[in-house]
Amino acid sequence: MGDQPVIEAMRYGLRGGKGLRAYLVLEGAALHDVDPARAIWPAAAIEAMHAYSLIHDDLPAMDDDDLRRGQPTVHVTWDDATAILAGDALQSLAFELALDPRGAQSAEARTELGLTLAQAAGARGMVLGQALDIAAETADRALTLDEITRLQNGKTGALIAWSATAGPRMARAKTEALQLYAEALGLAFQIADDILDVEGDEKTAGKRLQKDAGAGKATFVSLLGLAGAKARAAELTDAACDALSPYGKGADGLREAARFVISRQS
Amino acid sequence: MGDQPVIEAMRYGLRGGKGLRAYLVLEGAALHDVDPARAIWPAAAIEAMHAYSLIHDDLPAMDDDDLRRGQPTVHVTWDDATAILAGDALQSLAFELALDPRGAQSAEARTELGLTLAQAAGARGMVLGQALDIAAETADRALTLDEITRLQNGKTGALIAWSATAGPRMARAKTEALQLYAEALGLAFQIADDILDVEGDEKTAGKRLQKDAGAGKATFVSLLGLAGAKARAAELTDAACDALSPYGKGADGLREAARFVISRQS
Repeated sequence: MGDQPVIEAMRYGLRGGKGLRAYLVLEGAALHDVDPARAIWPAAAIEAMHAYSLIHDDLPAMDDDDLRRGQPTVHVTWDDATAILAGDALQSLAFELALDPRGAQSAEARTELGLTLAQAAGARGMVLGQALDIAAETADRALTLDEITRLQNGKTGALIAWSATAGPRMARAKTEALQLYAEALGLAFQIADDILDVEGDEKTAGKRLQKDAGAGKATFVSLLGLAGAKARAAELTDAACDALSPYGKGADGLREAARFVISRQS
Repeated sequence: MGDQPVIEAMRYGLRGGKGLRAYLVLEGAALHDVDPARAIWPAAAIEAMHAYSLIHDDLPAMDDDDLRRGQPTVHVTWDDATAILAGDALQSLAFELALDPRGAQSAEARTELGLTLAQAAGARGMVLGQALDIAAETADRALTLDEITRLQNGKTGALIAWSATAGPRMARAKTEALQLYAEALGLAFQIADDILDVEGDEKTAGKRLQKDAGAGKATFVSLLGLAGAKARAAELTDAACDALSPYGKGADGLREAARFVISRQS
């Protein structure tokens, strides 16, 4: 008898992502002169949190996806029970990593990282977004732009904002500029996701596409049109870059991330 | 469209428990002169963590239980997706509560509470126990006493130990005596659970019984016999009470909890 399947499933679920959220942590930390050997801990934490959310989101009872990051999803490779447990343990691991003393130097900063991570992940953050998403599928009308924006703020925005602000939190510095950056970036990211769902190539994306249109779901593309969605994503990218002005050229890595987000193919 | 179902399901899942883990936190805190208004935060945290584990454990893909705390389980009352999300959000909430500045006074104590909670809940703690439990169901042989003990240490023991030691952690005091108490208590608790599964009344217990024997699962009762299991549980209760001797009469509440654990009907 072994505990191996759950551990293997956790590793499998962590593999092959873009690492965007970890990148945001590391770049935000660099802007605040945080040692990268310390910043790697919250960077790993947010990737564990993100991986858990994907594993649970892909379950048959949720989005029922069989392909993720170019590989069969965790519940397809193992089974639903292993996927539930691997996701559960990855959420715990995320807090373990965020609170590790090898990460943020002061206990104040660690407890702040952990507390804000819990808020971003929970019923007023990511899980709220997921719940609104599920409610939308069975609703008798399509969502409005405001409602979709609120949904995405939770589903994607909360973890992206945590990632971008982890660096200043580690340094006990102000988070406002990176928070503004992240809010624009998170929304641009989700609009790009909706565009990818329509225009992308499944092989490159590594996940099933055209699911939303097939399900008759309102998206930024269905509400703004393809050209309108692209224009809005470009505006948001500019807004994200503008928010970085207090950091000068040091923030070029984050500007690059903003441009990557709307040009990405996966 | 509303986020209400997940929030309601979280509340529903939190209701009607014995509150044993919260009681352990409050009693352990009292022994270390921690203000109960502060101790209530980690006490609430551990009840949220426990409630999440029950909601996920009861899912059809896991233990497939329809009755819990005398009520239909969360996935029966709502659906699997809501139960998965409510469990996920309760885990986040557990960390939010454990790290709240209104709880442990020093940031060092809060980060320690959060970190040890993550370790207790994760793939080397509670989830490990769950994974071993699931592996046991499909194994081609019954578990040995050592294997069942390891399984239960994870599944039940880890959260009980965290509960009993949260008080000294809040006070930045030594945890050894309460750790020893909790290890004996946790095992006694699980043996009592196996006895309850054989001898208990479903109505009083508020959950389905005689599931283990029906599934041909090895339990403390199947391995030690009913009389042997009762004798072992009584020994462990004595050991738990002995571990409390450094605290004198102040620990009578915890002694009572140990006696409650083996006499409980639910």
